[in-house]
Amino acid sequence: MVASTPGQHPPPEQHHPRADAAELRALRARLAALDPAEATNVIERMPNDERAIAFRLLPKGEALEVFENLDPALQSELIDELREETIADLVAGLDPDDRARLFDELPAGLVAKLLSGLSPSERSMTTTLLGYPENSAGRRMTPEVAWLPVDMTAGRAIERLRAYGDAAETIYSVPVLAEGRRVVGVVSLRRLLLSDPATPLGEIMSEPVWAEATDDQEDAARQVREGGFIAIPIVDHESRLVGVLTVDDAMEILEDEEDEDAARSGGTEPLRRPYLSTSLFGLVKARVVWLLVLIVAASLTVGVQSFFEEELDTVVALALFIPLLIGTGGNAGAQAATTVVRAMAVEHVTPGDILRVVGREVLVGAMLGATLATVGFLPAMLVAGAPIAVVLAITVVAVCTLATTAGSAVPLTARKVGVDPAIVSAPFIATIVDTLGLIIYFSVAKVVLGI
Amino acid sequence: MVASTPGQHPPPEQHHPRADAAELRALRARLAALDPAEATNVIERMPNDERAIAFRLLPKGEALEVFENLDPALQSELIDELREETIADLVAGLDPDDRARLFDELPAGLVAKLLSGLSPSERSMTTTLLGYPENSAGRRMTPEVAWLPVDMTAGRAIERLRAYGDAAETIYSVPVLAEGRRVVGVVSLRRLLLSDPATPLGEIMSEPVWAEATDDQEDAARQVREGGFIAIPIVDHESRLVGVLTVDDAMEILEDEEDEDAARSGGTEPLRRPYLSTSLFGLVKARVVWLLVLIVAASLTVGVQSFFEEELDTVVALALFIPLLIGTGGNAGAQAATTVVRAMAVEHVTPGDILRVVGREVLVGAMLGATLATVGFLPAMLVAGAPIAVVLAITVVAVCTLATTAGSAVPLTARKVGVDPAIVSAPFIATIVDTLGLIIYFSVAKVVLGI
Repeated sequence: MVASTPGQHPPPEQHHPRADAAELRALRARLAALDPAEATNVIERMPNDERAIAFRLLPKGEALEVFENLDPALQSELIDELREETIADLVAGLDPDDRARLFDELPAGLVAKLLSGLSPSERSMTTTLLGYPENSAGRRMTPEVAWLPVDMTAGRAIERLRAYGDAAETIYSVPVLAEGRRVVGVVSLRRLLLSDPATPLGEIMSEPVWAEATDDQEDAARQVREGGFIAIPIVDHESRLVGVLTVDDAMEILEDEEDEDAARSGGTEPLRRPYLSTSLFGLVKARVVWLLVLIVAASLTVGVQSFFEEELDTVVALALFIPLLIGTGGNAGAQAATTVVRAMAVEHVTPGDILRVVGREVLVGAMLGATLATVGFLPAMLVAGAPIAVVLAITVVAVCTLATTAGSAVPLTARKVGVDPAIVSAPFIATIVDTLGLIIYFSVAKVVLGI
Repeated sequence: MVASTPGQHPPPEQHHPRADAAELRALRARLAALDPAEATNVIERMPNDERAIAFRLLPKGEALEVFENLDPALQSELIDELREETIADLVAGLDPDDRARLFDELPAGLVAKLLSGLSPSERSMTTTLLGYPENSAGRRMTPEVAWLPVDMTAGRAIERLRAYGDAAETIYSVPVLAEGRRVVGVVSLRRLLLSDPATPLGEIMSEPVWAEATDDQEDAARQVREGGFIAIPIVDHESRLVGVLTVDDAMEILEDEEDEDAARSGGTEPLRRPYLSTSLFGLVKARVVWLLVLIVAASLTVGVQSFFEEELDTVVALALFIPLLIGTGGNAGAQAATTVVRAMAVEHVTPGDILRVVGREVLVGAMLGATLATVGFLPAMLVAGAPIAVVLAITVVAVCTLATTAGSAVPLTARKVGVDPAIVSAPFIATIVDTLGLIIYFSVAKVVLGI
C-alpha cells in the first residue's frame, strides 16, 4: 500500500529499439500491476526509445495521470511519438499550469495547433498563464480558483463551494473578494464548517497572505511553505484575484529550485529531467561549459607559477605542498560558499547582511586556518624542515581567511547585482582561491626564506 | 499584506548586552508592528543575548506563534532565559510533534519537569512521539488525528469532522478505519461535501497511501510530496492508525534534509539553525573536522610528488600545470558527485542503478576530457611545447574519466552500505582525484617524455 520507491522495480535492462510481441505483453502486464506513481517511476527510468512504447501500453485512464507526473521535457518528447488524437486528449486533460509548462518546451507551431484544439475556456486560461513572465508566480498558479464574496454568510459559502465541485483546484483555502475582485481576506473550509452558518465571511476571514502574479515563483512558493498554507491567492497589481498557488505546486517549485542550486553548487547546469532519462550528450552539455570556464580561470595558476619559477627552482620543496595548500583553500572556500548560498536560499541571510556575514567569515577563516596550522606544524616540520613549516603555517591561515572571505562575499555580491549566487559557488570560488593562494604562498616564502 | 522578506527590516546593529529603557520601548514598538512571521525573522537574526530580551517584549498571543516558528535549537536557548511559568505556557501551547523536537534539545531533567506540567492527554501524546526512533515518521507525525469509521455515511462524516473542531491537525484528508483502528482508506472533505450524504464512506474513499511510524521521515515526506497529498496516515506494523503527517511538516522535513545535503556537498556539517544565530565557534565546529580530514587526505599529494621528484626536476615545466590539472579533475568529480547525490535525493537514481550510472559517467568523463584536450591543446603547445601538450591532453582525458567514475561510484556505494552519500561528496572526491590524478600525470609524462 505504501507508495513504491523506484528501487523496488528493477529497471529494464534490455535496450532493444523494438520489443517483440511477448515482451510487449509482459511489459503491459507489468505496467497494469502498478499504480500511476509507480508507473511514472518505471517509465521515467526507461531509455528514450522504450518510453513511448511503454506509454502506449498504459490503461487509458492511467495514461493521463502518468503523463501529468512526467517532467515537461519528457512530456514534450513523448508527444513527438504519439498520434494526434492521443496528444489532443492528453493536453486537454492537463491542468492549465502544467499545460503552460509543457507548451514552453514545444515548438510554437505545435503549440498554436494544440491551443486551437482546446475548449475556449481552457484555451483562455492557458494563454493567460503563458502571458506571465517565465519563472513568475503567474506561470505556476492555477486560474481555476474558487472564491467567495465578502458579504456572504458561512452557510451559503459552503453551498457555493460545494457547487464548484471539482472545477476549482482547492476549496480548502478560499480567497474572499470585495468589489472589483479585490482580495480582502482568506477563509478556510474548516473555519466555515465550524462557524455559525449565519456569520458573514467578513467576520471569520483572516488577513490574506498573497503574491503578485509577476513575483518570482520561488518567493511565492516560500510564502506558502513558511506560512504552512494550503494555497495563497495570486493577485495583479491592483490586488485583484487572478489565481491561487497551491501547496503541491509550491513544493514542486521549491524542489526545482533546489535542483538548480544543488547542480550549480557542483559547477554544473541543472538537468531539468530525471538523470537516467538524460542523454549522455545532455550530461556533457550540462557540464562542459563550466569545466571550460573553470579551466580557463585555472590557467592563471600556470601564469603565477611561471612568475615565481625562480623561487621554485631555489626551494624545490615548496612545490610539494602546492596541491595540498590550494586544495585546502578550495575546501574552505567551498564550505563558506555553500553555507552562505544555502542561508540565502532559505532567506536566513539577505544581501543587506553582507558586512555582518563577511565579518564573521573573516574570523571563521582565521580560526580554521589557525587550527590547521597548529595541528599541521609538527608533521610539516618533520617532512620539510622548520623554515618551510613556518611558511606553510602562515600561508594556511592567510589562504583560509581569504577563502572564507571570498566564499561569502562573492555569492552575496552576486545576489546583490542580480546574478544567481549559486552560479558563482564552490568550484568557481575554489579556482579564484587557487590563484590568489599561490601568490600568497610564494610571497610568504620569499619573505620568510629570504629568497 | 505580502509576507515580509527579512531584507525589509534592517537588522539591529547595536550589540549591547543590556538595552536601556528607551531602546526597549523602541524595540517593543517595532515588534508590535510586525506579524508573527516577520517578528520571527527579526528575532532569529538577533545576536543571542538580545533574543530573549526581544522575545519577552512580544505581545502574549504573538509570543507563542513566534516561539513555534523558531528552530528547536533557538527554542531551547530561549528557555534558558525565560521564567518558569512562561516556559510551561509555551511548552503547553506547542503541537505535540514540535514539543517532541524541542525536548530532544533539552536536558533530561528539564524534560521530565515540563512533561509533568502537561495535561495527561498532552503528556501521553508527547511521550508516544518521543518513543519513536529519531528521524522516524513517528517523531514528526501529529497524533491529534481525525478519523472516520468505514461504515459511516458521508453526511454523518461531515458532522463528525465538524465536531472535531480544532482538535485535529487536519480534517481535509481523513483516514477511514475498519475494526481495530486498521486504515482501509482515505477520504477528502471535498469528496464528502460533493457526495450524496447517504453514501457510505466505503464507496467514496480512495486507496490509502501511508507510511509506517518507524519509516524514515524523509521517505514519508517524499510520499506526501510526490502524491500531492495534504496529509498521509501514519500506521504501526499492523496498519493501525497512530497519526498523520501533514504537508507542512513534510515540507519542513524535506527542507531540513536539503539543508543537510547542501551543507555536506560543500564539505561542512549542517548548522541546524539560522546562519546569523550561529556562533562563530559553531561555524568553526561545523567545518573544522572536514577540513582536517581533507587535509590529511590531501597530504597524500605531497607523498606522490616526492615520489616523482626526479621527473619533476628533469622537466620543471610539468610542475606548472599541476594546479590546473588537479583542479580540473576536482571540478569534474564534483560535477558527477553533485549530480548523482541529487538524483538519489529525489529518488531518480537508486543504488541498484550503480552499473548503469557509472557506465554513463565513464563515457561522460571521457567526452568531457576529450573536449578539454581538444580545446586546450593549442594553447598548451604554445606555452609548453608539443611534448608536454601531448602529456597534458592524455592526462586530462584520463583524469576526467577517473573523476566522473569516482564521483558517481563513491556516493552510490556509500548509499548501498548505508552511509549518507552527501558525506562523501564533492570535496572528498576532489581530494581522491587530486592524488590519483598526480600519479596519472607523472606516469603519462614518464612514458611520453621518456624520462
